[in-house]
Amino acid sequence: MLKINPTQLQSDLDALNQFGHNAATGGMNRVAYNEADMQARRWFDAQMRELGLTVRIDAAGNSIGTYAGSQNLPPIALGSHTDTVPEGGKYDGTLGVTAALACVRALKEANIRLQHPIEVINFTAEEATMGGGTFGSLAMAIGLPTGYADKPAWDGRPVHAHLSAAGIDPAGTRAAKRAVGSVAAYFELHIEQGGNLIGEGKDIGIVEGIVGIRRYLLAFDGDANHAGTTPMHLRNDALVKAAPIIHAVRDLALKHSIVATIGSMSVKPGASNVIPGRVDVVAEMRSLKGSVLDAAEHDLQNITESLGGSYARMSIKEEMICDEQLQQALVMACGELCLSHRYLPSGAGHDAMCMAAICPSVMLFVPSVGGISHSPKEFTSLEDCVNGANVMLGSLLHIDAQLS
Amino acid sequence: MLKINPTQLQSDLDALNQFGHNAATGGMNRVAYNEADMQARRWFDAQMRELGLTVRIDAAGNSIGTYAGSQNLPPIALGSHTDTVPEGGKYDGTLGVTAALACVRALKEANIRLQHPIEVINFTAEEATMGGGTFGSLAMAIGLPTGYADKPAWDGRPVHAHLSAAGIDPAGTRAAKRAVGSVAAYFELHIEQGGNLIGEGKDIGIVEGIVGIRRYLLAFDGDANHAGTTPMHLRNDALVKAAPIIHAVRDLALKHSIVATIGSMSVKPGASNVIPGRVDVVAEMRSLKGSVLDAAEHDLQNITESLGGSYARMSIKEEMICDEQLQQALVMACGELCLSHRYLPSGAGHDAMCMAAICPSVMLFVPSVGGISHSPKEFTSLEDCVNGANVMLGSLLHIDAQLS
Repeated sequence: MLKINPTQLQSDLDALNQFGHNAATGGMNRVAYNEADMQARRWFDAQMRELGLTVRIDAAGNSIGTYAGSQNLPPIALGSHTDTVPEGGKYDGTLGVTAALACVRALKEANIRLQHPIEVINFTAEEATMGGGTFGSLAMAIGLPTGYADKPAWDGRPVHAHLSAAGIDPAGTRAAKRAVGSVAAYFELHIEQGGNLIGEGKDIGIVEGIVGIRRYLLAFDGDANHAGTTPMHLRNDALVKAAPIIHAVRDLALKHSIVATIGSMSVKPGASNVIPGRVDVVAEMRSLKGSVLDAAEHDLQNITESLGGSYARMSIKEEMICDEQLQQALVMACGELCLSHRYLPSGAGHDAMCMAAICPSVMLFVPSVGGISHSPKEFTSLEDCVNGANVMLGSLLHIDAQLS
Repeated sequence: MLKINPTQLQSDLDALNQFGHNAATGGMNRVAYNEADMQARRWFDAQMRELGLTVRIDAAGNSIGTYAGSQNLPPIALGSHTDTVPEGGKYDGTLGVTAALACVRALKEANIRLQHPIEVINFTAEEATMGGGTFGSLAMAIGLPTGYADKPAWDGRPVHAHLSAAGIDPAGTRAAKRAVGSVAAYFELHIEQGGNLIGEGKDIGIVEGIVGIRRYLLAFDGDANHAGTTPMHLRNDALVKAAPIIHAVRDLALKHSIVATIGSMSVKPGASNVIPGRVDVVAEMRSLKGSVLDAAEHDLQNITESLGGSYARMSIKEEMICDEQLQQALVMACGELCLSHRYLPSGAGHDAMCMAAICPSVMLFVPSVGGISHSPKEFTSLEDCVNGANVMLGSLLHIDAQLS
């Protein structure tokens, strides 16, 4: 059975993680378009070329390496990204692209040419540093929203300044857009950003989809007043009013089997001797199922209003469902490799979310120790990395045959 | 029966409120030692001199006008302050000093000389703008704590810079300290900073004391984690942990018949997509009775710890009990003037709190519309101002006789 080369995968991971490495903390600092990020991208381009891939850089800065197929078919793409959050880890994104390269390397070294061309895609600016996440895949699969380039990047400078410095024409990113159906399928291997696999001792996570995210501003008004001179029965304390929403949001998550979080709560004016006059709560809910989110949202509105608060939607990100045929191919490969698996949703966004707009897409996860990501502490064993790459390779072979 | 001159009282209030008046908002801006504050102080000194009082300015900047008595006795003092918070009102402090002046004027115009000398004291920097409140009375009755002059004032500059600019030697304030027993009694008329009197239609509030204030930092630790990828049953959400403390503090206030408030609550890291890893709650409790605060504090500690939080005292300000003989004199004067009264505590600090360290002290309140203070909307009718001044004058006559 065809397998990737573990030593080479480790060596590629190590080589990529030379770029942007903070020796003091162990953190990775390939923040999109900074010097380390650009150096890492060019290094990865060179590896692809060395393997004989045809490499092009699209109008949004995505690197696409093509391993030719034997038939005139749209390519099957394997991708992820090499940029990181500030002080990020060594696997988020990096594993996906090095594993993609490892798959093509295995094919090449075994002199196997599939019917479909295989693309290795290193998306640009996947992390939410450029005024939002998945910049490169958004440009490739959906198109960037109007005004995107004027948004502030992570450092406060406009996105267009970063793009221009990286040699990307902010006005020309539309040319990166690919047509629906122009890609046959998309695979993305990633570390699980959570503790399910490691907790249950499973080797592979078959991703059912990427959750929809809905955020709400729940506002509670009271009367700010002197905390010493206002008797209890004459108070209208916004915090006392808002308090039950905290457990209500937790209970609502349990009821609907979703995740729901109050991550931000601001108490105003916020002085120890003033009764709170206003509390702003930001609640978010995530689920793979839009209909479940609809029901939970309905409950949230009722609870908030019954507490005397006001309710407003801040944002909605639609859920993405992974392609079933691709999921089946992953399960088949797990079986062939004697690896255990479980289905699970992705609670975080990824490039696959965008790619699903133009082709059947799927993701697979490997265990991350402690469920940690976006941190120097992020760690996945080489064995798990190799397992993930082998499952991707095995399912690629199945899909190449099935889709021809 | 001897009464003050209402027209003159209104005219003095109006004259004082020329200083620091913001015509656009109606707010008063005699922030301690600013130009308006200093002008108002000098104007008030001049009024006292014009009435024949001997005026001295002590080493802390307090103005003390003395109306001689017939016997060699320590003085009875009537006082308050003319400084305001930024955008403050026209009565807080101002009523106290103008009413004190009105009492002496009534004596003078009726050719009455009491056995005790009468002092009118305009304390300096009563509002919490100079690194804490009651600067002048603290210096006079207790002594300023070490390092006080280096604390930042309301504008961030050190207190000593403000003092020096006002001609007060920061190193010399100790000379303002008066000995215990060197004052026979202290009266302070103030608007109620709360809605009890206006709500119940009572004319006069006999202040039983100034509440003790205790503040606590209640800290709840959790594990900050990804709000999308961490399942509900694997969470350790600091906000979910902390939530019950909000109603617990309210319930504890009701149980012990005190006021208790959570005015500040900080949720960290505070991002909508991160489970709270830490919540810091500032709770405060106020009561006239130290033993009740002890019991409530014990409950607060138990509740906090039972929720998995940690508990720490931030500060304690001891309660001050008004002198009973002085309270009786106020009640007697109310009866003579056919004014209704009720007893009540002061939930806010005042100069009387400090003066109690060197002499029997008492306060009386008059109704404030809407219970509002520290605001351009602060309003007390002339009738109520006059009632308050007359009660102070009447009780002064009783006390002068009783203490001789």
